[in-house]
Amino acid sequence: MSDKPLLIAAPYPQIWSRIFSKEDLNRLNELVNVKYLGDDPAPDEEIDALIPDAVAIAGQPDLPRARLERAQKLKAIFSIEGNFYQNIDYDHCFQNGIRVLNCGAVYALPVAEMALEFALNVARGVHREDRRFRKGTERYLGEACRDSILLTGAEVGFIGFGNLGRALRPLLEPFRCRIKVYDPWLPDSLIYEHGCQPAGLDEVLSTSTFIFVLAGVTTENQVFLGARQFDLIRPGSIFLLMSRAAVVDFDEFVKRVAAGQFKAASDVFPQEPMPKDHPVREVDELLLSPHRAGGIPQAFQSIGKMLVDDLDLILRSLPPIRMQAAQPETVKRFSSKPADPAIGK
Amino acid sequence: MSDKPLLIAAPYPQIWSRIFSKEDLNRLNELVNVKYLGDDPAPDEEIDALIPDAVAIAGQPDLPRARLERAQKLKAIFSIEGNFYQNIDYDHCFQNGIRVLNCGAVYALPVAEMALEFALNVARGVHREDRRFRKGTERYLGEACRDSILLTGAEVGFIGFGNLGRALRPLLEPFRCRIKVYDPWLPDSLIYEHGCQPAGLDEVLSTSTFIFVLAGVTTENQVFLGARQFDLIRPGSIFLLMSRAAVVDFDEFVKRVAAGQFKAASDVFPQEPMPKDHPVREVDELLLSPHRAGGIPQAFQSIGKMLVDDLDLILRSLPPIRMQAAQPETVKRFSSKPADPAIGK
Amino acid sequence: MSDKPLLIAAPYPQIWSRIFSKEDLNRLNELVNVKYLGDDPAPDEEIDALIPDAVAIAGQPDLPRARLERAQKLKAIFSIEGNFYQNIDYDHCFQNGIRVLNCGAVYALPVAEMALEFALNVARGVHREDRRFRKGTERYLGEACRDSILLTGAEVGFIGFGNLGRALRPLLEPFRCRIKVYDPWLPDSLIYEHGCQPAGLDEVLSTSTFIFVLAGVTTENQVFLGARQFDLIRPGSIFLLMSRAAVVDFDEFVKRVAAGQFKAASDVFPQEPMPKDHPVREVDELLLSPHRAGGIPQAFQSIGKMLVDDLDLILRSLPPIRMQAAQPETVKRFSSKPADPAIGK
Amino acid sequence: MSDKPLLIAAPYPQIWSRIFSKEDLNRLNELVNVKYLGDDPAPDEEIDALIPDAVAIAGQPDLPRARLERAQKLKAIFSIEGNFYQNIDYDHCFQNGIRVLNCGAVYALPVAEMALEFALNVARGVHREDRRFRKGTERYLGEACRDSILLTGAEVGFIGFGNLGRALRPLLEPFRCRIKVYDPWLPDSLIYEHGCQPAGLDEVLSTSTFIFVLAGVTTENQVFLGARQFDLIRPGSIFLLMSRAAVVDFDEFVKRVAAGQFKAASDVFPQEPMPKDHPVREVDELLLSPHRAGGIPQAFQSIGKMLVDDLDLILRSLPPIRMQAAQPETVKRFSSKPADPAIGK
Repeated sequence: MSDKPLLIAAPYPQIWSRIFSKEDLNRLNELVNVKYLGDDPAPDEEIDALIPDAVAIAGQPDLPRARLERAQKLKAIFSIEGNFYQNIDYDHCFQNGIRVLNCGAVYALPVAEMALEFALNVARGVHREDRRFRKGTERYLGEACRDSILLTGAEVGFIGFGNLGRALRPLLEPFRCRIKVYDPWLPDSLIYEHGCQPAGLDEVLSTSTFIFVLAGVTTENQVFLGARQFDLIRPGSIFLLMSRAAVVDFDEFVKRVAAGQFKAASDVFPQEPMPKDHPVREVDELLLSPHRAGGIPQAFQSIGKMLVDDLDLILRSLPPIRMQAAQPETVKRFSSKPADPAIGK
Repeated sequence: MSDKPLLIAAPYPQIWSRIFSKEDLNRLNELVNVKYLGDDPAPDEEIDALIPDAVAIAGQPDLPRARLERAQKLKAIFSIEGNFYQNIDYDHCFQNGIRVLNCGAVYALPVAEMALEFALNVARGVHREDRRFRKGTERYLGEACRDSILLTGAEVGFIGFGNLGRALRPLLEPFRCRIKVYDPWLPDSLIYEHGCQPAGLDEVLSTSTFIFVLAGVTTENQVFLGARQFDLIRPGSIFLLMSRAAVVDFDEFVKRVAAGQFKAASDVFPQEPMPKDHPVREVDELLLSPHRAGGIPQAFQSIGKMLVDDLDLILRSLPPIRMQAAQPETVKRFSSKPADPAIGK
Repeated sequence: MSDKPLLIAAPYPQIWSRIFSKEDLNRLNELVNVKYLGDDPAPDEEIDALIPDAVAIAGQPDLPRARLERAQKLKAIFSIEGNFYQNIDYDHCFQNGIRVLNCGAVYALPVAEMALEFALNVARGVHREDRRFRKGTERYLGEACRDSILLTGAEVGFIGFGNLGRALRPLLEPFRCRIKVYDPWLPDSLIYEHGCQPAGLDEVLSTSTFIFVLAGVTTENQVFLGARQFDLIRPGSIFLLMSRAAVVDFDEFVKRVAAGQFKAASDVFPQEPMPKDHPVREVDELLLSPHRAGGIPQAFQSIGKMLVDDLDLILRSLPPIRMQAAQPETVKRFSSKPADPAIGK
Repeated sequence: MSDKPLLIAAPYPQIWSRIFSKEDLNRLNELVNVKYLGDDPAPDEEIDALIPDAVAIAGQPDLPRARLERAQKLKAIFSIEGNFYQNIDYDHCFQNGIRVLNCGAVYALPVAEMALEFALNVARGVHREDRRFRKGTERYLGEACRDSILLTGAEVGFIGFGNLGRALRPLLEPFRCRIKVYDPWLPDSLIYEHGCQPAGLDEVLSTSTFIFVLAGVTTENQVFLGARQFDLIRPGSIFLLMSRAAVVDFDEFVKRVAAGQFKAASDVFPQEPMPKDHPVREVDELLLSPHRAGGIPQAFQSIGKMLVDDLDLILRSLPPIRMQAAQPETVKRFSSKPADPAIGK
């Protein structure tokens, strides 16, 4: 019988085995006695039986106050799926020094690489010409390049400057773009420190050739990009929807791209899967990506590494520094729902 | 009648109007009296009539020694198409201080952006999943991402490190890749100075996850990448053919990708256009791009800007610094032929 | 009478007027009603009278539990001097959602620039040769350069990788150094993400040509660099003491530099001012800087800007993001004492 | 008897042994049969005896046409001291495909590191306070920092943008300065490509906080920085004289710094050594450096490496790419004289 501290692993809707490299799993087992409850939702009675001894929970089972009050040894709850859900009594955690930590930052780099890929792809019509080539209607050299533009030196706009924006900005550095950022949650000075210029939403839309939508969805910002905002986008610009479909009027967005006002790429959709007969599937200047920007194997394995890194610090009475800690001011605003585990596994 | 010096514009196979912005054309007309002979091949008699007064020629009409000996005022010949052809008596030019200058470097940045686009595209299967989406067979989230990899931190190999490689390398800087370079024309120290590691061809092929083929074609390096070399490439690697189809055994290359040994993208093809029934059109893991990496409008306009910049310097008795000067050691080795002007205009 | 929320300004040992630009002071006055209690220590009775109405306190007056319990509106305490002192009941603050925020990060960039300056200065003997020039004993060209080395490509070691190290690392990027980092508080993965290599203390000391001491002082790490550690430093290396004199055996350090084992610079001293007759003043290869690396006007003005930025967020119920929040795991470990306000104003 | 090609080594005023690492000397001896004529000026008769067989000459002995006409095998002349002198018949070389190559670029990186060192040093008064510390009059913390400024974010001006400027610019990248460049020899587009802004001399002087003088001296630009230009410099700016004293009115320069108009550093002087009683030695805000920026051991060893690299290419009938080739338009304009070999060895 181990005298190591106890970690409860209740990973649903995450899959326990995919978030660890062999090396990190070994590190984890060095630190704690792992009680893994399976990848399905963990039964309440199992949680209840273990929680008095647990120093950490990996996953987000329901943790109301009554249950947390029995968790006298608990130091950390690791959200290993990427969002904060409203099934935890956060106030209790803040008052009792229990860290609630989120792995969402692991997706920032894969999404940033994908955002750059989309920008370069659409700027050069790569997806369009690849499809033509397969149909035998390809056009060589200059003819199919008349609308090609460089990213180097272009005017760029970011809508949102959280994890995604901060991961994307360094990838753009060699391109020497001027980057304008709209993010009402941030002071101007922080944006300047990242070498960007703060700007209003209308200015970002009306002056940028590449527009990256990187804003997470909150209870307050649903559908803030609709017809009035699309009117501001200059002809020939490139609109890249990376974060959440809920921030745009999606039908209007598709209509504009189909009509040729601007070009676009989208990784997110209002329904997933989209209906088989949805007109989005026919739009030639809209690169289609079925929610693939973040969830790649390297991202999943980073979750396990971060968990072990932070657990190690916490057990040494040091603050966690790899995952993002829930903040009392904001944790209750997040309205994301878990990705449907029936999709994409 | 102008007393400005004379420039003969014989742009074929280039198109005169597309290489100048309005601003640069004005600058040109300030500097010289332009005698434009049309975009078709210029008649010999017109060249002959003008050449005694010309200080510069834009284009590459035939310039054998007899003709050049009559060009007593000539200071510069601007190749505005991108290659050095063997219809000029280069020895005469070197002996008489006539600069022969090449605009080929303008294509380096567009090709570098395209090379990065291809790398990110293939690494994430973007072209493949876009095509599935249009057929209604797309897969959301993790399922279609099992083979997705990051560029960040990857092992990268460059085959060739001329203009293209030197334009691509800075774009990779934020990705913190280790870059190995094979280029038998270069001393190791130069490669180290660019933050890369010199390596043999076999090492580059066998250890790199992303392999960029960036070598120009010479009389000496035709088909240096064939079956033996492809055997060295690790399964799951990504092979990006950017420079010239003639350096690979193209059929073998297509066969390997179709068989799933590695993934790839190609911008160049042994015949352009490719036959309608060529199997390359069916290969799912081969991104197809019909020779579109370099010839974009911004590249063409850079030619005019460079020409004016260097002409201005030369008229002030300063050395040209924007275009690349023909070198006595190498100018006669280039075997490129002009792009067929019937294609791509 | 203002109906804006109340901020108590009790800046001692900071000076209120020097931390604000005119613009930031205007922004502050827009947000809150500032009750400024002078730059001397604020009388208890004034604090007591105001605290029930205060939403924020700028400064670190004594804030024991009894006093904080009367501060029912309090949301933030801004430490505007740079350290967390043990005169605040931090547990109460954590339990009641009161942010305790520290401006110490403003000094990181000035110290980082100074660290780079010291490294380049000592590597080239600049201070030594400037002094010789004034005495008329200067040596021109190569003779006085025999021991000069480049930073470019050198082996670099960081001892400590908090704010200072993370501000210095980007400044070294163009020099393409390999950087080894010793920091027992950090997981290896974080160090790798910054492009550095984690290493033990002995390895850092024995393999680095430039050694930067960037560790803050805690109750646990006093004098961890003494004779045994200095023995590991290679002849001709360069040792740069930037953070706290208390981490080194200072007399031993001076002795080693005087004896020529390595060269050095120091910005911090065990006593400030140092005794007039201390031998440190005579050591030719030790650049002397009287605690000048951090406290420059631009740093002071950043404090005010950060304060206003974070206050604005907090009043909008958003988390602060400019200053560093006290962490429950570590805030009680800091043993720094305030800089003596009699010095340096 | 060797059948390797012959290289004549006549290094004066360079010193043969200091320009080679052991490794590079081995590489050289693999390539050629080295006939070393000593570090003193080589006797004409020895040159004459060897020149018919030489493929390369390292050094710049007198090479008038008559002598070169006997050098039928000669392919390259390596200037290993850093300047082109007027004792070579350059026209003959250009007409006969003999490369004349210059190692001057090896000094660019050491000078660039020194220029950055001077900028940071003067910005923080490091040299001044180090001298005070040794006199016992040092001032701790803020008092002596009132005039300290950051390089980060500052307005920077370059006067000249040749090798030195292009080596310095990347070192400034992390500081996110706006850099204005005055260089009448360069087209604006080249300056833009380096991320800088072209500007007139007066604008550079009147708007920059850090002014770097990086211009080589030609027959045309002697003393182009005098009283009228100094009038334009803003109070408190920092003037860094890196390249040649002959471009400034030196006495006026010293007077201005002594009077407190601006601060400065100088690595070059109108006489070297300067007179013992020259007032420059007393100026507190002028950092003094006796011509030490370029000639460091790593620079000298780079000369040998470059020589071997380029010799290897030339013997393989490839163009040299490490050293800078003499250009017909400019080689006769250079008016530098060799550094007096009696100084600095």
